[in-house]
Amino acid sequence: MSEDKELVIQANESFYRAFESLDSQRMEQVWAEDDSIQCGHPGWQILRGRKAVMESWRRIFENTPAVRFMLTDICVALHGTVAWVTLYENLIGSVEGQNVSATVLTTNIFRKRPEGWRLIHHHGSPVAQPPSQADPTTVH
Amino acid sequence: MSEDKELVIQANESFYRAFESLDSQRMEQVWAEDDSIQCGHPGWQILRGRKAVMESWRRIFENTPAVRFMLTDICVALHGTVAWVTLYENLIGSVEGQNVSATVLTTNIFRKRPEGWRLIHHHGSPVAQPPSQADPTTVH
Repeated sequence: MSEDKELVIQANESFYRAFESLDSQRMEQVWAEDDSIQCGHPGWQILRGRKAVMESWRRIFENTPAVRFMLTDICVALHGTVAWVTLYENLIGSVEGQNVSATVLTTNIFRKRPEGWRLIHHHGSPVAQPPSQADPTTVH
Repeated sequence: MSEDKELVIQANESFYRAFESLDSQRMEQVWAEDDSIQCGHPGWQILRGRKAVMESWRRIFENTPAVRFMLTDICVALHGTVAWVTLYENLIGSVEGQNVSATVLTTNIFRKRPEGWRLIHHHGSPVAQPPSQADPTTVH
């Protein structure tokens, strides 16, 4: 596996660890310092620009006592200084006072910056029928 | 607007005209000749590889008497030979024998090839509350 591919996988992992930490500052560090960032939370309208995206994370974190992700079927596409990762977020936790368990199909796009690979686009969407044979160890 | 941005918008438009045509061969021409293509139809599991993606279109087209799209809030991000478009698909039509009207948030990723910009990734997801002030004439 190329070094960049490895770094993209790490950046992707950092995003989910930041999400689990429910720490807005940690989440801010995962994203590019770029006003063109975009974020589509499952079922939400798309948010564009750093201010709107970071406000959404603060709001989510304020209303989430705990959340854990198991990532499955991770696939990385690398094109120079841009890369995207597709995967299923297998989510367990407590969101806005209710226990939830869900599978979300996600596209995360990263851009290579001097400081490392940073997230610039997140699009998550509910999956009607989660895959039955997802393998958490598989990285394509 | 840069020439490439204009060409990406045209490639994106071609994807929806191919969808409306319900013509599998036309849809095949919109996508890159690349086995790394991926497609996440709303609510579906992600499909990876040209064979799986094209089979899905044939299946959708066989079960769709008619469909029309109005695209709103189109935003293009251009990074060298890779570009992505986010937008809302405002969909009206008849799908699998039922009239439908829906709004789908979409990320379409394109790659510049010798033959032009071609789709390599499509991810569409239902939006719970469609935006109220979408402007079909706006391209960011």
